[in-house]
Amino acid sequence: MNGFVLTEMTWPEVEDALKTARMAIIPVGAHEQHGPHMNESCDAVLATEMAKRLATALHPEVLVTPTVNMGVSPHHMNFPGTISLRPETLLALLRDMVESLKRHGITRVLFLNGHGGNQSTLGLACTSLTQELGVACYYAKTTAAAKKAMKEHIHSTLYGHSCEREVSEAFYLAPHLVRPERLEKGDIVSGGRWEALRPGNPIQGFYRYEEMTRNGCIGDATQASYEIGQAIVEEALEGLTAAVRELLAGPVETAPPTPEIA
Amino acid sequence: MNGFVLTEMTWPEVEDALKTARMAIIPVGAHEQHGPHMNESCDAVLATEMAKRLATALHPEVLVTPTVNMGVSPHHMNFPGTISLRPETLLALLRDMVESLKRHGITRVLFLNGHGGNQSTLGLACTSLTQELGVACYYAKTTAAAKKAMKEHIHSTLYGHSCEREVSEAFYLAPHLVRPERLEKGDIVSGGRWEALRPGNPIQGFYRYEEMTRNGCIGDATQASYEIGQAIVEEALEGLTAAVRELLAGPVETAPPTPEIA
Amino acid sequence: MNGFVLTEMTWPEVEDALKTARMAIIPVGAHEQHGPHMNESCDAVLATEMAKRLATALHPEVLVTPTVNMGVSPHHMNFPGTISLRPETLLALLRDMVESLKRHGITRVLFLNGHGGNQSTLGLACTSLTQELGVACYYAKTTAAAKKAMKEHIHSTLYGHSCEREVSEAFYLAPHLVRPERLEKGDIVSGGRWEALRPGNPIQGFYRYEEMTRNGCIGDATQASYEIGQAIVEEALEGLTAAVRELLAGPVETAPPTPEIA
Amino acid sequence: MNGFVLTEMTWPEVEDALKTARMAIIPVGAHEQHGPHMNESCDAVLATEMAKRLATALHPEVLVTPTVNMGVSPHHMNFPGTISLRPETLLALLRDMVESLKRHGITRVLFLNGHGGNQSTLGLACTSLTQELGVACYYAKTTAAAKKAMKEHIHSTLYGHSCEREVSEAFYLAPHLVRPERLEKGDIVSGGRWEALRPGNPIQGFYRYEEMTRNGCIGDATQASYEIGQAIVEEALEGLTAAVRELLAGPVETAPPTPEIA
Amino acid sequence: MNGFVLTEMTWPEVEDALKTARMAIIPVGAHEQHGPHMNESCDAVLATEMAKRLATALHPEVLVTPTVNMGVSPHHMNFPGTISLRPETLLALLRDMVESLKRHGITRVLFLNGHGGNQSTLGLACTSLTQELGVACYYAKTTAAAKKAMKEHIHSTLYGHSCEREVSEAFYLAPHLVRPERLEKGDIVSGGRWEALRPGNPIQGFYRYEEMTRNGCIGDATQASYEIGQAIVEEALEGLTAAVRELLAGPVETAPPTPEIA
Amino acid sequence: MNGFVLTEMTWPEVEDALKTARMAIIPVGAHEQHGPHMNESCDAVLATEMAKRLATALHPEVLVTPTVNMGVSPHHMNFPGTISLRPETLLALLRDMVESLKRHGITRVLFLNGHGGNQSTLGLACTSLTQELGVACYYAKTTAAAKKAMKEHIHSTLYGHSCEREVSEAFYLAPHLVRPERLEKGDIVSGGRWEALRPGNPIQGFYRYEEMTRNGCIGDATQASYEIGQAIVEEALEGLTAAVRELLAGPVETAPPTPEIA
Repeated sequence: MNGFVLTEMTWPEVEDALKTARMAIIPVGAHEQHGPHMNESCDAVLATEMAKRLATALHPEVLVTPTVNMGVSPHHMNFPGTISLRPETLLALLRDMVESLKRHGITRVLFLNGHGGNQSTLGLACTSLTQELGVACYYAKTTAAAKKAMKEHIHSTLYGHSCEREVSEAFYLAPHLVRPERLEKGDIVSGGRWEALRPGNPIQGFYRYEEMTRNGCIGDATQASYEIGQAIVEEALEGLTAAVRELLAGPVETAPPTPEIA
Repeated sequence: MNGFVLTEMTWPEVEDALKTARMAIIPVGAHEQHGPHMNESCDAVLATEMAKRLATALHPEVLVTPTVNMGVSPHHMNFPGTISLRPETLLALLRDMVESLKRHGITRVLFLNGHGGNQSTLGLACTSLTQELGVACYYAKTTAAAKKAMKEHIHSTLYGHSCEREVSEAFYLAPHLVRPERLEKGDIVSGGRWEALRPGNPIQGFYRYEEMTRNGCIGDATQASYEIGQAIVEEALEGLTAAVRELLAGPVETAPPTPEIA
Repeated sequence: MNGFVLTEMTWPEVEDALKTARMAIIPVGAHEQHGPHMNESCDAVLATEMAKRLATALHPEVLVTPTVNMGVSPHHMNFPGTISLRPETLLALLRDMVESLKRHGITRVLFLNGHGGNQSTLGLACTSLTQELGVACYYAKTTAAAKKAMKEHIHSTLYGHSCEREVSEAFYLAPHLVRPERLEKGDIVSGGRWEALRPGNPIQGFYRYEEMTRNGCIGDATQASYEIGQAIVEEALEGLTAAVRELLAGPVETAPPTPEIA
Repeated sequence: MNGFVLTEMTWPEVEDALKTARMAIIPVGAHEQHGPHMNESCDAVLATEMAKRLATALHPEVLVTPTVNMGVSPHHMNFPGTISLRPETLLALLRDMVESLKRHGITRVLFLNGHGGNQSTLGLACTSLTQELGVACYYAKTTAAAKKAMKEHIHSTLYGHSCEREVSEAFYLAPHLVRPERLEKGDIVSGGRWEALRPGNPIQGFYRYEEMTRNGCIGDATQASYEIGQAIVEEALEGLTAAVRELLAGPVETAPPTPEIA
Repeated sequence: MNGFVLTEMTWPEVEDALKTARMAIIPVGAHEQHGPHMNESCDAVLATEMAKRLATALHPEVLVTPTVNMGVSPHHMNFPGTISLRPETLLALLRDMVESLKRHGITRVLFLNGHGGNQSTLGLACTSLTQELGVACYYAKTTAAAKKAMKEHIHSTLYGHSCEREVSEAFYLAPHLVRPERLEKGDIVSGGRWEALRPGNPIQGFYRYEEMTRNGCIGDATQASYEIGQAIVEEALEGLTAAVRELLAGPVETAPPTPEIA
Repeated sequence: MNGFVLTEMTWPEVEDALKTARMAIIPVGAHEQHGPHMNESCDAVLATEMAKRLATALHPEVLVTPTVNMGVSPHHMNFPGTISLRPETLLALLRDMVESLKRHGITRVLFLNGHGGNQSTLGLACTSLTQELGVACYYAKTTAAAKKAMKEHIHSTLYGHSCEREVSEAFYLAPHLVRPERLEKGDIVSGGRWEALRPGNPIQGFYRYEEMTRNGCIGDATQASYEIGQAIVEEALEGLTAAVRELLAGPVETAPPTPEIA
C-alpha cells in the first residue's frame, strides 16, 4: 500500500504530502469486549486497516492520521477490559485533531468509524466542528456501504458485533484479531428489555450488552470467512472511494454564511 | 383529555398524581423554519400534543412535563427566525429536568421528540443520564412507529420536514400551525452535495438546508390531509402506548452494577 | 394583538418582520409550585402574555421569541412538581438564543422575566452576553415598573409569590392559571431563619421556601382581583414601553472599546 | 484586635481555633479603578478590615480566611488598571475555598463583600454551594446594615463608588487608600443611557462606568470624613454581629432533604 | 514477551488476568515531528514498547492498556504533521480510562510517558485522579531512570528530542521508526530566546521548537546506536521494575482521609 | 521601594505607569500549612515581597499586580487551615488577569511563584495563554536563581518547605511570618512511600505531606538566618532582573504563525 499514513512519516515527508493531500481520514475505533473470539482492539484495528486501504485508493489526495483507539462503549462496561470514553471526551479529542490538521492546511476531514456506539457523537462532531472550525467534517461507518455483500452473505437477523460480518472483515483485514478455535454464536437472552429498544422499534434507549447476550456476541461468528470479508471490504471501499471523490470534486462547504446585520 | 400535564396543575394536584405516575414524558421540539406554510414552532407544538395524547392513553401512570421548545437546528440557521441550541445546552437542560423529576420520585423518563435534528443528542442524553442519575431514560420520534400509515399515505421519496407527513399531522393535531393557502412542494436543489450525504449513503455529514431546498420544505405538502394525519398519529400512539406499557411492566434498569473491587 | 410573535410565524413572515424589528423580547419564566391555587407554569405564562402585549405596544419594532419556560427554582424543589435549572444551564440557553438572533440581524435583546429567582442569573447574562456577543442585552421583571399600582393595591408586608399581586395579574392576563375556589393566604412559618435573610437585612442567603410558608404562598391571594391585575399590568406596560423606546432611540451599546495597544 | 485570621496563623494555632470556630468569613473585594482619589485595591482592603473587626466581635466563634482580592468588574475595564474576573471564575474560586474549609470542619460560611458588582455572583454562589457542598453559605455587603448612619450622613442622590460613603469608610478603616489632596466629586455624564438602567427603573442592563462618570467616581467624596466612616462602620458591624449570632444560634441549614423515592 | 496487553486479549482472557493484575500501565505518547530522521509516531511507539517490556518483567501483576497516541505538543505545531491535544483534553481522556479501569477492579495506575511535553499534565492528572477517583496514579518518563547509561553514552549538552538518546532507544526497541540514511545533528539556532528559558534558568516559558532548531532535532542523532539504546532501555526497565515492585508492596494510597466534622 | 504596585495606585497613576511599563509581574502564592513556625500565608507574602523588589529593580518597565494569594495545595489538606485551589481554578483566574492586563496594553506577563505545587499549572498556563491571548507569558520560582547561595548555605538533603531556606527568606523579607521561638527541624517519616516518589526517582506521583513529615516541615529551620535570606534573595533578584531585561530586549513572541492554507 502506498497511501500517506502520518504515523509512518517524517515531517519533510508530510510537507511533501500536504502539496497534494486535500482530506484527512481519522480512523475512529473502540476498546471493548468482542466476545470470546476477538481481541478488544477489534474496532480500532479494523478502522485503521480500512483507512489505509482507502488512502491507497485515493492517493495522493488523502492522508491517514493516528487512530482514535478508544470510543464510546458504556454498554460494554460490565465485560472485563472495556474502556469507555464519555462522548464529550471523544468530541474534545476530535476537535483538537481537526484544529491541528487545519493548521497544516487541511480543509476536509473524514471520521472513518469502526464502532456503532460512536455514531451519534460523530454526527454531533461533524455539525459542531464544521461550523466552529471552518473545516468540512464527514463521517462514515467503515463497511456500511457494502449493502450488496451484506445482503448476500449475512443471514442472522440480529448482527453487528463480533458476528459473521465483523469476524469476516477481520479474517480479511487483520486475522490476528480472531481466535478461530473459539468462534461462537451469540448467546442471546430472549425476552429481554433490549428487544423493545432495537432500531426500528417505537422507542430507543440505553441498555447493557449483557442484557442481550451472555457471551458478548450477537449473530453467528461460526459462519465467518475470509471470502465474505473480502466481498464486504472491497465493496465498501469502492463505495467510500466514489463518495470521497465526489466530495473532493466540489467546493469546501463549512459554516453557513452570516446574513448582513441591518 | 385527562392525562397529567404538569403545566396545568397545582402542587397538591401533582402530589396526588405522583402516587400513581411512574414515568415522565418530556416533549422535545425545535424552533426552526418550516417553509412558507408552517409556523416555526411546529415541532414543539406537535411533540406537546402527542405527549398529551400519550399521557391520556397511559393515565394515570405517566405525566407530561413542560416542553423543551427549542432544539438543535444549525442546518436551518440561514432561514429567518430559526433559533438553535448547541447539543451541550440541550443536554444540560435535559439533565436538570431529569434531576428535578428524580427529586419527586420519578425513575423513568421518555423524551418524546418532534425534531429529527435532536435524535443524536437525545441518544447521548439517554446513555449519560441513565448512568449518572440512575433514572432510566428513553427517547422516541413522535410518529416513527406509524410504519403502516406512512407506507400507505406518503409517496415522496424525500420527505420528513414540512412535507405531506408533517402537515398532515398538524392538520389533525394543531391546525393553527398551517397556512393552507400557502402549501407548496419542496423546491429541491438537484445535483447538490446533500444528495451524497442523505441517510443510507456511504458517508454522512453536515449540510445546510438551503443546499437542499430553496423554500425550506421537502416532500409535497399539497398532498397533506386531516385523514392522513389521523392515520399516522393514531397508529403511532398505539405503538408508543404498547411500548411504554412494556417498559413499565419490567424493573427500572439504570446503571450497570459495578463488579466487586478485588 | 398584532405584535410579531415568532412561534406563530413562518419564515417569510419573519423575513418581513426583520425589516423593521430592532429588538427581541425573550420571555423568561419558571416551572415551580405556586401554592394550592395557581398552576406551576404561572411565571412562564405571565411572562409570555406580558411580552405579547409589550410587542403590540411597540409594533413593528420588536418581536417575541419562544418562551424560556423553566427557570432557577431550587428553593421550591421540596414542593411536588417543581423543575429547576442550574444558573449555568439558563445562561447557556440564553447564550444560544442571543447568538441565533444575532445571526438574523438582531442587536438588542430584552429578557422579560416573570420569576424573581432568575434575576441574578439574568443580570450576569446581560453582562456576559453584551460583551461577548456584541448584542446589547437588558432585563426587566415583568411588572416591577408598576410602583404606583402596587402601593395602592398591595397591602401585605410580605408578598411576591402566588400572592394578591401575582394572582391579580393572572386574573387579568391568564385566568386559567388560577383556582379561584382554592385561594388561600400564605401560611407563614413565624420565627424562622428566613426572616433574617429577607432583602433589606444585613445578611442574605439561600433558604428553602417551606422554611417560610407551609402552603407555598406568601401574601394574601384572597385579596386578588381582575381590577388590581389590570392596574398593575397596564402601568407596568406603560413603563416598559417608554423604557424600551428610550433604548431604541439611542445607539446600540455593547462591549467597551479596547484601548489601543502601545 | 484578637480575632482568628488564617493568614497570620500557623497550623497548630488553626487547629486550636477550630475547636471553637463555627463559621468562616471570606472577605471578597475587587481590583478596580476608584477615581483619582482612591487606590484600586479599595474594595479588597475594606472587606478585609471589616472581616477582621467582625471576627473580633464574634471571637472565638468565627475565623477570617484569605481575601478574594479581585472581583467582577467588567464595567470598569476602560479605566487603567482594572482587573476583572468572569463570574464563573469567582464561583470556582469560592467553591474551592468552601470545599477546603469543609475539610477542616467548617459548616457555615459568610462572604463579606466590598464590591457591588459581586452581589449577583455571590447570590448564585450561596444557592449552589449550600446545596452541593452541604455548607450553609451566606453573603453580606460590608456596610449595607448601616441604614441609620447612611440616612444621616450621605446626601448625594447617586452614590456608592468612591463617594462620601466609601471614602469615609476608608478614612476610618484604612486611610492609606485615600489621596486626601485629590478628593473630587463625581464628574457625572448627564442624559446618558445609564440613567434609564439604574436600580429602581423598569429595565436593567450592562453599561460601562465611563458612560456615567468621567472621573470614575459618583457622589461627592469631598464630603467624606473619619467621623462619618466611624458611624457607618460601627453601625454596620453591630448589625452584622447580631445577624451572625442569630444564624449561629440555629441549626446548620443546607440542602433540602430529598423526599423518599416511591 | 508474555505480559498482559489488553489490545491483544479477549474478555475471558482479561477476566483471568484481573485475578492477578494489581496495576495498569497506560502508555502515553505524542504525534509530533521528530526531525528528518524519525517517524512522527515515535513517542507513542516507544512508550508502548517500554510498557510491554515492563509488563513482561512484572508479569502477572500488571497489564498494559491501549496507548494514548497523541499528546501535548503545541511547541511543534509549525512543523508539518504534528497533532496536539490541549492539556484538558488529555486529562479528560486519562480520567475516562482510569474510571473504566476502576470499574474492572484496578486500583493503581502508572502513566508511562514517552514525551516531555506531557509531564506537567500527567503530574496534574495524578494529583486530581488519585483524589477524585480513589485510584492511586503515578507517572514516569520512560527512560529517565537510566542515569548511568545516559551519563556514559550521551555527550551533547542539549539533547532530548530526536537526539542520540531517542534514536538509540528506537534502534533497540522499534527500528522502523528511524531513517538511518537521513540521520542529522540538530541544526540549532544560536542566540535565541529559548536559551534563556531552558530548564535550570531563572525563568521558564513557552517557546516554539523552530526558535531553537531549524530541522526539528536537538543533540546529535548521528551518534546513536543499538548498543546505546540497549544500555539505556535495560537500565531504565530495571529501575522502573524495582520502583513498581516497591509501590505494589505497600497499601493503595489515594485521597487524604477527611478529618471528622465537629 | 519605588516600583509600580497596582494595589497602591489610582487609575490616573496607572495611566501614567502604562506609558513605560512593558511587563506585568503577577505574584502567585498559596495558603497552606508551613509547620509550627510559619504563617500559612508564607508563600503569598514572600512572592509579593519578591515582586515588589523586582519591580523596583526594573522600574519603570514593569508593574506588580494583585497577588494570587491561594494556590494548588492538595497535599497539605490534612493540616488545619490549608486552602487549596484546583489547577483549573488557578488557570481560570490567571486567564482573566492576563486578559484584563491585555486590555490595558500589557503584552508580557511573568508569574512570580512562591509555591512549588503551582509549577505544573503555571507551565500549562504559559503555554495556553501565550497562544490563546497573544500575550507572552513566563513563570519563575522566586528564588530558584540563587544557586550559589543555596549551595553555600543550605545543607539539608531534603529541603524546600518551611526549611532553613524558606525561613531565612522570611527573616529577610517578612519576619512577621516566623515564630522564632518555635523553630523546628522537619520531623521526617522514614521508610515511607514518599521516598520513592521524590524528584529524581524513576516514578513520581501524588502523596500527602503527612506521609513525609509529622510537623509539616522538611529541612532544618533552626539553621535559618537573616544573612542566609539576604544572600539567597539578593542573588535571586539579580538573576531574575537580568533574565527579564533579556526578555524585554527582544520582540514579543506569542502564538506560532499559522502557515498559509493551500
